[in-house]
Amino acid sequence: MTAHVDRIHDERLHDRVVSAEDAASWIKDGMTLGMSGFTRAGDVKAVPTALVNRSENEAFKVNVFTGASLGSDIDKMFAEAGIINKRLPFQADPVMRKKINQGEHLFVDHHLSHTSEWIRHNVIETIDYAILEAISIKEDGTIIPSTSIGNSLVFAENAENIIVEINTAQPELLEGVHDLYSPAKQGERQPIPLTKPEDRIGESGIKVDPAKIKGIVFTEQKDSPSTITQPDEETKMMADHLLEFLRDEVKSGRLTEQLAPIQSGIGSVANAVLHGMVDSEFEHLQVYSEVLQDAVFDLIDAGKVDFASCCSITLSEDKMEKVFSQFENYRDKLVMRPQEISNHPEIIRRLGLISINTALEFDIYGNINSTHVSGTKMMNGIGGSGDFARNAKLAIFVTKSIAKGGDISSIVPYASHIDHTEHDVDVVVTEQGYADLRGLAPRERVPQIIENCAHPMYREQLWNYYREAIERGGQTPHVLEKAFSWHTNFAEHGTMRERVLETV
Amino acid sequence: MTAHVDRIHDERLHDRVVSAEDAASWIKDGMTLGMSGFTRAGDVKAVPTALVNRSENEAFKVNVFTGASLGSDIDKMFAEAGIINKRLPFQADPVMRKKINQGEHLFVDHHLSHTSEWIRHNVIETIDYAILEAISIKEDGTIIPSTSIGNSLVFAENAENIIVEINTAQPELLEGVHDLYSPAKQGERQPIPLTKPEDRIGESGIKVDPAKIKGIVFTEQKDSPSTITQPDEETKMMADHLLEFLRDEVKSGRLTEQLAPIQSGIGSVANAVLHGMVDSEFEHLQVYSEVLQDAVFDLIDAGKVDFASCCSITLSEDKMEKVFSQFENYRDKLVMRPQEISNHPEIIRRLGLISINTALEFDIYGNINSTHVSGTKMMNGIGGSGDFARNAKLAIFVTKSIAKGGDISSIVPYASHIDHTEHDVDVVVTEQGYADLRGLAPRERVPQIIENCAHPMYREQLWNYYREAIERGGQTPHVLEKAFSWHTNFAEHGTMRERVLETV
Repeated sequence: MTAHVDRIHDERLHDRVVSAEDAASWIKDGMTLGMSGFTRAGDVKAVPTALVNRSENEAFKVNVFTGASLGSDIDKMFAEAGIINKRLPFQADPVMRKKINQGEHLFVDHHLSHTSEWIRHNVIETIDYAILEAISIKEDGTIIPSTSIGNSLVFAENAENIIVEINTAQPELLEGVHDLYSPAKQGERQPIPLTKPEDRIGESGIKVDPAKIKGIVFTEQKDSPSTITQPDEETKMMADHLLEFLRDEVKSGRLTEQLAPIQSGIGSVANAVLHGMVDSEFEHLQVYSEVLQDAVFDLIDAGKVDFASCCSITLSEDKMEKVFSQFENYRDKLVMRPQEISNHPEIIRRLGLISINTALEFDIYGNINSTHVSGTKMMNGIGGSGDFARNAKLAIFVTKSIAKGGDISSIVPYASHIDHTEHDVDVVVTEQGYADLRGLAPRERVPQIIENCAHPMYREQLWNYYREAIERGGQTPHVLEKAFSWHTNFAEHGTMRERVLETV
Repeated sequence: MTAHVDRIHDERLHDRVVSAEDAASWIKDGMTLGMSGFTRAGDVKAVPTALVNRSENEAFKVNVFTGASLGSDIDKMFAEAGIINKRLPFQADPVMRKKINQGEHLFVDHHLSHTSEWIRHNVIETIDYAILEAISIKEDGTIIPSTSIGNSLVFAENAENIIVEINTAQPELLEGVHDLYSPAKQGERQPIPLTKPEDRIGESGIKVDPAKIKGIVFTEQKDSPSTITQPDEETKMMADHLLEFLRDEVKSGRLTEQLAPIQSGIGSVANAVLHGMVDSEFEHLQVYSEVLQDAVFDLIDAGKVDFASCCSITLSEDKMEKVFSQFENYRDKLVMRPQEISNHPEIIRRLGLISINTALEFDIYGNINSTHVSGTKMMNGIGGSGDFARNAKLAIFVTKSIAKGGDISSIVPYASHIDHTEHDVDVVVTEQGYADLRGLAPRERVPQIIENCAHPMYREQLWNYYREAIERGGQTPHVLEKAFSWHTNFAEHGTMRERVLETV
């Protein structure tokens, strides 16, 4: 890899350029790495790859802390190489997922706004090496991040050593989009002075003591594109139901046609739902989210979104090409922040976000499972959904009502794992409709959820459970011995449907 | 009741004085009442009593919104009279609890910092009458609250009509302790300018348009004293374990001997744990909490607590007498705020609170049940525990390891209702010890919880469950068909103990 020393404007650092192999050789067994990267964007690529290569001849394990999931198959390679001791706070790789569920390495599933506090206050392992992707280093040693910020600032501030990976395939035009703000320690900090999504409150890069920069590595490898699938009939229906709900809010005077700043979770469903706003009457929208996916840029192009704040930009291959080749059209409509700020409860509550996240399943009282298949097997992690749902003005969760051709109902008597309790969930949406749960007691929620959200093939079965439960009474009636019977039926018979089971 | 018009300094309002019966007669079937009162302190007494009396001859139902639970048997009388349609956001009365669990009236169990946003943004029923206890009304019509603020400010701001109940049994000396601050609407508000527990950011009373004050009623009925039980052997052991944990935090440099501002939940266990600090080495402590119970005043008397912020003061009979007869000793060490501010995520996160709340039960992974006995029957409600646990620096939950002479284990395979997920729980404490769960993956949490917190008589039984679960794998291993078997065994056989069951 050629060294592009013109990307290192601080001449004192020119002698720190090393190969990825050299940098990887500094990492010792038992160390903790704080790596840049948030949902396929801005992850370091060369040093992790060199580290995996090193593991072919040497046994070692490291803790890997990041912003969120990584692209470039880094988590896959790490998992296959077996070099992970503990991974935190999020992942989304099928191979890593399998290893986690087999208990082969540890995974701490953590609210994405919380990790920075643990690091700042020395609660978890000290970061031995912060390894950060950058587009350049400025005259004073300031590191300019690339397509995500994630936890890079807090890693850099608290790490003993920093390795910078300058990626010449990342658009230099991103410089100026970043806004790096770091709260002081708890008890010593001031209010975060952000009152609108477009406010700039920090620095344009990561200011560090240049002595901590132990090595600079060059790479020229693009971010992995997102593998987002196009909206289908059902996600379009979900988008329509969500728009219907928002229209009702406007009619009732609780929202204007500008709505409120929108946060949207990652993945195809959330992207499709957001995409549904392109042809809506809503305009002058603002986005205050973690990841900007394709839909946000479509909304900007359509003149619907005026401004978007994020901590990461993760696009499909085509959209990446388009956005970065015409970046001057987007520059003044974007700001990128640390995930601590994009996901901060103080800001989320102050701005009154409309928060849209994906559920795996939810129950008849509105408790949400975002993470665990059948209550035990990790899918990806809670991510930022808890940061947002707890503090947003509107905590909305979306999911298709059935999966596996109808053998799984996403609406169940009792969610097999609970990430968001009934207290934190305002609206649930499926392709069947939406249920507005605000102000409803548990017994009032049940008919709304069953009739508006459950698939018709499961409604009677849900009513049967509830009728039996209500005979026993309680604020939240249940038949505890049958609460997970839908999940155990699925495990045993491959379906949650009782009628099918009767004939099996 | 004699009218003490000298308590009404705004002469324009002298002609609004009415009897409680007259005021109660204005309340119509289907109306929504926003009543002052937070945990036996500062509740209105005369008008609710008159309303209950009216119900003897007339059928009607109302929605009752408050700060939290009420004293003076108001909730009991309401429940017995059957005049409640919907109650929100918290209650703690045995008769009301029974009616709720029988489905006789609705109860919306709500985060205590969230209700104000629903009212301000017109999400739930409009408040027809705010009925607020006061010690006086000032020259400009400002209402000076009594021993709690709760939701009184947001009720007054948003109600169509206000009834003030001036209670001459409440100490007038409280004037000047209140600090009323109301955030603007979400999206239009500024940061809350509070960076230390002692900061004063608002007004000394509730400023309203005097035209909204429809009636002023006089009463002379003291708050109900708290029925707190004295610390016992087990709560003392819990306090010792908590102190041991805090000492370790100081040793590790994560806390100083001033600790961090403390929040403590209501009830005897939390009070006892806080009381354990009287003889500790910790000093210059600060409290940033909802309710101040006896222990906080003991800590002030012992020179341990320098300052305490609250939204309510609820004391035992003796302590009430003592505190209010020597109030000049406490005045400059106290401030009372709306519950929206005492429980605000922005402030809790900024100050980095140490938050101590009571659990009903928790599971081997650290999920907490604060509200539902056997997953179905409401005890009191989530109260502020969610506001604090999610945003605190240290979310600590305390409970005795067993109940009913050992027939119930408070540590179970799967919490039968989840109010606080594994993501929001840092430390759990029982009389057996404490488990520090920070930074631990679910599989790492299990031995900590079983060995340090479960009662010895249940440890092997918990291990047996976990061993069977881990055979099936997963991030959070479970045997779903047995997850609630401890609860169903208790329901059927009166005990969770397997050995006992074998011999039954």
